[in-house]
Amino acid sequence: MEKQTVRVGLMGFGTVGTGVVRIIQAHQEDLQKQTGLGIEISKILVQNAEKSRSIPSMEKIVTTDVHDILDDEGIDVVVEVIGGISQAKDYILAALDRGKHVVTANKDLMALHGGEILQKAEEKGCDVFYEASVAGGIPILRALVEGFSSDRITKMMGIVNGTTNYILSKMSQEGADYAEVLKEAQALGYAEADPTSDVEGFDAARKMAILATLGFRVPMKLEDVDVKGISRVSKEDIAYGKKLGYEVKLLGLARRDGEAIEVSVQPTMVAKSHPLASVNGVFNAVYVHGEAVGETMFYGPGAGELPTATAVVSDLVTVVKNMKLGVNGRGMVAPYKEKILKEDSQKLSKYFLRMVVADKRGVLAQITQLLAEKNISLEQVVQQPYNNGQQAEIILVTHSAAKGDMDAVLTYMEEMDIVHEIKSCYRVEGGE
Amino acid sequence: MEKQTVRVGLMGFGTVGTGVVRIIQAHQEDLQKQTGLGIEISKILVQNAEKSRSIPSMEKIVTTDVHDILDDEGIDVVVEVIGGISQAKDYILAALDRGKHVVTANKDLMALHGGEILQKAEEKGCDVFYEASVAGGIPILRALVEGFSSDRITKMMGIVNGTTNYILSKMSQEGADYAEVLKEAQALGYAEADPTSDVEGFDAARKMAILATLGFRVPMKLEDVDVKGISRVSKEDIAYGKKLGYEVKLLGLARRDGEAIEVSVQPTMVAKSHPLASVNGVFNAVYVHGEAVGETMFYGPGAGELPTATAVVSDLVTVVKNMKLGVNGRGMVAPYKEKILKEDSQKLSKYFLRMVVADKRGVLAQITQLLAEKNISLEQVVQQPYNNGQQAEIILVTHSAAKGDMDAVLTYMEEMDIVHEIKSCYRVEGGE
Repeated sequence: MEKQTVRVGLMGFGTVGTGVVRIIQAHQEDLQKQTGLGIEISKILVQNAEKSRSIPSMEKIVTTDVHDILDDEGIDVVVEVIGGISQAKDYILAALDRGKHVVTANKDLMALHGGEILQKAEEKGCDVFYEASVAGGIPILRALVEGFSSDRITKMMGIVNGTTNYILSKMSQEGADYAEVLKEAQALGYAEADPTSDVEGFDAARKMAILATLGFRVPMKLEDVDVKGISRVSKEDIAYGKKLGYEVKLLGLARRDGEAIEVSVQPTMVAKSHPLASVNGVFNAVYVHGEAVGETMFYGPGAGELPTATAVVSDLVTVVKNMKLGVNGRGMVAPYKEKILKEDSQKLSKYFLRMVVADKRGVLAQITQLLAEKNISLEQVVQQPYNNGQQAEIILVTHSAAKGDMDAVLTYMEEMDIVHEIKSCYRVEGGE
Repeated sequence: MEKQTVRVGLMGFGTVGTGVVRIIQAHQEDLQKQTGLGIEISKILVQNAEKSRSIPSMEKIVTTDVHDILDDEGIDVVVEVIGGISQAKDYILAALDRGKHVVTANKDLMALHGGEILQKAEEKGCDVFYEASVAGGIPILRALVEGFSSDRITKMMGIVNGTTNYILSKMSQEGADYAEVLKEAQALGYAEADPTSDVEGFDAARKMAILATLGFRVPMKLEDVDVKGISRVSKEDIAYGKKLGYEVKLLGLARRDGEAIEVSVQPTMVAKSHPLASVNGVFNAVYVHGEAVGETMFYGPGAGELPTATAVVSDLVTVVKNMKLGVNGRGMVAPYKEKILKEDSQKLSKYFLRMVVADKRGVLAQITQLLAEKNISLEQVVQQPYNNGQQAEIILVTHSAAKGDMDAVLTYMEEMDIVHEIKSCYRVEGGE
């Protein structure tokens, strides 16, 4: 007898888990029409079985014992939304071992152990989908794997962390300080009490590792991503950037030239004419450049109960369709290209540089001379009085320069008497 | 013996056809890795077999006889990029009859006869994909069918015609006249010698019919789409719109409230804060609102040899993967919901209205009184001298009003002595 209903074990009943249950309940009929099968949540793994839930009808199927899900042969699919790394990894590997398909929203896990998990899935002929792990409600992973399957992606730039984008947008709109806006974001629930993972760029780095792996089809690791957060972005930098035509964004960047790849996350001056510059608040966006397709951008909510849950349930629909067709475990293409990371001399971009210098004749000439020696030419230069005219402030935007050269210049400048302080240095994107 | 190479019959060797050949040639190895099968263009249907081609190696496989493709049992997939309607339809139906899968970029055909073609495909167990038919390089159809499979889409707004968006962007940026910019666009090849299909909104209407069918899962027909083009948009309207915070865009709109649907294409005042307002030039964008996911937007090139060809080849990759898995003909979900079209009284939106009136006391009071009687309230009102103070100009932005009421008001105003001319009336979107 053919299966009529797919039984799902849900691990985690927090915000996203609740959203998953709500969407499955609300769209039961639509889901049935699309997949030809019913979808039933059979068991829900929770930490505290006594806690009352916002969906009371589900209280009777909660369990605190993961084996109630893992050892139930009638459960076909595990949806993991507990988060964290080591426990989630154990559960997912155990589920795959027992032939259960997996949908997860866990970016930390997929960025760190995606390779191992996908390999196990392949061995077992199981599906593993994780659309919700990057940019919540935006179906960007499908776009990379399927929509652009015939193209060669050369560059991805992402605003993939809502917390930092909220903070930077507010700083830009209100001319406010970082510390002030962070406090406000924490009060509103947009930033965690310990905001390190967001503001230092680690969250964005995990997502960029996932995007680069899928987009470039190389096995990127988290430690391959250069990371710098936003905690040192000042309102002055934002104001000067604006004057020169830029918005500061925490930008994830994955770029391929020839076969050499760089992946990084850093606060970046984005030209206002670029569509990423107007992505504000908690929204996310991923810009993708393909050799043939050219420029595309995907915009939407990066987090939130229902957007994330929508991505999870859409993955679940794919698993169920695959079950119906008997083709699980063959959806994703494992990375098949060798990873070649760029040297710093191959990482090219424009730079925005702000520094305080001595107010003496010839200072600007010395600075530009130093840059010229490293083959760095200038697109814009502003010099103005600083500290009541006792010093001068110089703001430079360079033409394309190698990171290695730029780093060398900065190191040298630190030692120059005439350079009193290097206030900031940003990568510049989107202005070509 | 299992098949090693999928043989493709290409119908059409113009811009897009050439792009398809180039992409398949350039990415042969990548495509093989992804699908496990080689992809070979076996025959190309052309009108003139003598013409020399930009890819000379292909000249030996061109034919002017469609039966060389249709009757070749070794050809598994037909890629149709000849365009037009009746011939393309005959060829596609004939290909499906012979069990060949079909990829097409033909929006005209799919908007008019999509139902019949998909039904035939279902009967024959064949795939039909048409991602390239809407918004060229943007994988929006996949997003609707798969990415948002678990959500309920309530609204789609699209800038889906590059020609008109180029014209309106130029008019906005340069304060130029419609006729002037149209001529320029024709000289640049962005507009056809006969631009009717683009500027009168018919092209956009076809794409919106396709989007609404997939997004709402109802069988929308082209005649269900209300269409108004841009040929009467004036630079004055654009300038006034800007002052009040709007950009004029030719917007395709598909909206569902409850089960009732409206689909239209018209020049629309789009609030500058909305991401669609900054989509300029020949770029396309589709904004999708889902109940759970909230706001998303997909941005990219709407046309062009390589973007369109990328979408075609990505569809071809899906067909080939499906062949490998033996699951063709089950990818798309046929529309399964009953079509319920809104009455004009159910079509709600804000309106922008500009008119020239007599410069007499009490005129504005009479106008606003008339609107109030139809329960239309105002968000913004500007009155200013016109024609050297001999008349007055009134610009109104209403709160949400029913199209039926607005039409009645306009009809009534036409008859009022104090209203000398109704200059323009636009739907307003994106400002909520």
